[in-house]
Amino acid sequence: MTFNSVLDDVQIYEAGKPIELVVREYGVDPKDIIKLASNENPYGTSPKVVSKLEEVSKNAFVYPDDSMYELKEALADKFQVNEHNIIVGAGSDQVIEFCVHAKCNASSKILMSGTTFAMYEIYGRQTGAKIIKTKDDEHNLYQFSLLYEEEGADIIFLCLPNNPLGECLDSQDVYKFLDTVDKNTLVVLDGAYQEFASYKDSAKSINPADVISKYPNVIYLGTFSKAYALGGMRVGYGISNTDIINTLYKLRPPFNITTPTLAAAIEALKDEEFVEECIVKNFEQMTRYEEYANSKGFEYIPSYTNFITMYLGEYNSKQIAQKLLEKGVIVRDMTGYGFNAVRITIGTQEQNTRVFTILDEVLKNS
Amino acid sequence: MTFNSVLDDVQIYEAGKPIELVVREYGVDPKDIIKLASNENPYGTSPKVVSKLEEVSKNAFVYPDDSMYELKEALADKFQVNEHNIIVGAGSDQVIEFCVHAKCNASSKILMSGTTFAMYEIYGRQTGAKIIKTKDDEHNLYQFSLLYEEEGADIIFLCLPNNPLGECLDSQDVYKFLDTVDKNTLVVLDGAYQEFASYKDSAKSINPADVISKYPNVIYLGTFSKAYALGGMRVGYGISNTDIINTLYKLRPPFNITTPTLAAAIEALKDEEFVEECIVKNFEQMTRYEEYANSKGFEYIPSYTNFITMYLGEYNSKQIAQKLLEKGVIVRDMTGYGFNAVRITIGTQEQNTRVFTILDEVLKNS
Repeated sequence: MTFNSVLDDVQIYEAGKPIELVVREYGVDPKDIIKLASNENPYGTSPKVVSKLEEVSKNAFVYPDDSMYELKEALADKFQVNEHNIIVGAGSDQVIEFCVHAKCNASSKILMSGTTFAMYEIYGRQTGAKIIKTKDDEHNLYQFSLLYEEEGADIIFLCLPNNPLGECLDSQDVYKFLDTVDKNTLVVLDGAYQEFASYKDSAKSINPADVISKYPNVIYLGTFSKAYALGGMRVGYGISNTDIINTLYKLRPPFNITTPTLAAAIEALKDEEFVEECIVKNFEQMTRYEEYANSKGFEYIPSYTNFITMYLGEYNSKQIAQKLLEKGVIVRDMTGYGFNAVRITIGTQEQNTRVFTILDEVLKNS
Repeated sequence: MTFNSVLDDVQIYEAGKPIELVVREYGVDPKDIIKLASNENPYGTSPKVVSKLEEVSKNAFVYPDDSMYELKEALADKFQVNEHNIIVGAGSDQVIEFCVHAKCNASSKILMSGTTFAMYEIYGRQTGAKIIKTKDDEHNLYQFSLLYEEEGADIIFLCLPNNPLGECLDSQDVYKFLDTVDKNTLVVLDGAYQEFASYKDSAKSINPADVISKYPNVIYLGTFSKAYALGGMRVGYGISNTDIINTLYKLRPPFNITTPTLAAAIEALKDEEFVEECIVKNFEQMTRYEEYANSKGFEYIPSYTNFITMYLGEYNSKQIAQKLLEKGVIVRDMTGYGFNAVRITIGTQEQNTRVFTILDEVLKNS
């Protein structure tokens, strides 16, 4: 059977390895597995949200309120925007998908950083669009500007801070760049890890209300998967002008988030204290990774997120990641991105202590 | 901002009205609301599944096992196919989306029944494909054949049984039709309500394993939203040959179903007894609707599903549906489909008794 030829070039996203797989393949006891590969919140979901989920379990047979009235109201209140400026997706991932499919086809161009979130490219290739990347891996706005002048672009992705590297542009630099972009180019500001970056350094903080009031061509993306500890519930959002939101709505499948997800997201927004506590602990624990890297002479990228990308010097990152996996520590090898490095989610104090011990062992035997 | 021009013609799907909206707009007490608009399972979710959901609430922060190993194994076992023949979607809806986007573009054609599931057309229009419908509302394979000969098609949708009308083709007729279809045309057999149809009349029963072994160009779709009572969890599946499944995988976003959804679906497959009980009760209660319609002289379409489409004769279905809504009974008005009819999900005995009482009142005052 023949299919759309653009699919020939589409890669399948490689997800972080799930705990179930490590149990199956290496026979590690589930309680001994430390999963630090997908930047989940290691402190678990807020107890208040867990209670809410238990309470709504009996509603699994009911379709969700597809207007998402209450969730959109809560988000509008948090970000001081109108509900009509919001679209909710099955993860901010899905909003990325809407943006790409709304704007791109085989004659389109998408501009992004040399190494950034893999789904920008994967969704882009589904439409046959040309993918243009800066030479630098980390975001370099000078290179973005040159390429934009040279090639133009239908969409520009800025990942603030950047996954999987961890660096983050200053918001003032982002705004200056936005001033130079044509109003027919959609600029996606992906704030999946913004809560972390804003806490560490206010100069990285993006205010969606300000952005959309100044720039009619920008969409800000947020997620509940990281700081809000709902990675398993698949919910994120886009904030933009109604012109863009209304068009994205045409691509939104009905009931795109689940009934428990809707309840969980609404409840999570009521427990900001939990989120803040997790972020504080995240950066306390990140210091330990930095110290560990320094002690081994490993370079790392200073991170504005809940993960750290650490180069492994003379060790082979693919082999090290594999050996860690066999001992139940799941991290992300970065070989596929062209780095001899691992990306490790910052775990809890106890998890990190064990990671250092096991990593020491693995390095000694490599 | 300009967008892909194909989106100009895209309609937004109108979902059944949620309970929350009726509470907000008409001030009806939530406990008095009877929602029979979205063909949810009125008996609620299996208690075993509810317990499982309560148990996994604490895992909301963890991404699901994206390989869906255990769920695919359970489905493969149930349908006696290989796991590589299965793709899991956020509702069978999402598998429809994958099929359309894999196969169609602005020069494609999609053939379907005159009145059928709205998402076939909505996803079709997202690609700019031409939508071809039979003149008859209900499935008429003779008309399908003539149009297919005349126009050809990249995809043919057969909804077995048909939503929102309720009729169902005999499987032998479907197989004879499949014999005449070119192997480069993808035929989607949408079995969202197959559990109901198969129970009522074994001549309607489609066996996915048989179908895919005979026809390399056919995909069978199933869902957990209806008989399995997981409408709020968003999970369905496609069964087809690996060539098709592998291509659809290129369009599947990672983590397309939630962590609790995965657990719920696996558990639901272990409790087939619950499903059977619900189906038996469904058809017992449907008899009451048929008798009610007969007593009023209303025509209805004999239904192989968990809903019934009832014509309202001299009454205006839009007005009747609105008046029912104000009294807390949510049904689907069919005016938008060109019918002076309502589609009512078959509720529980108690719900249906109340529906008849309230409908009597409304009709008396109309």
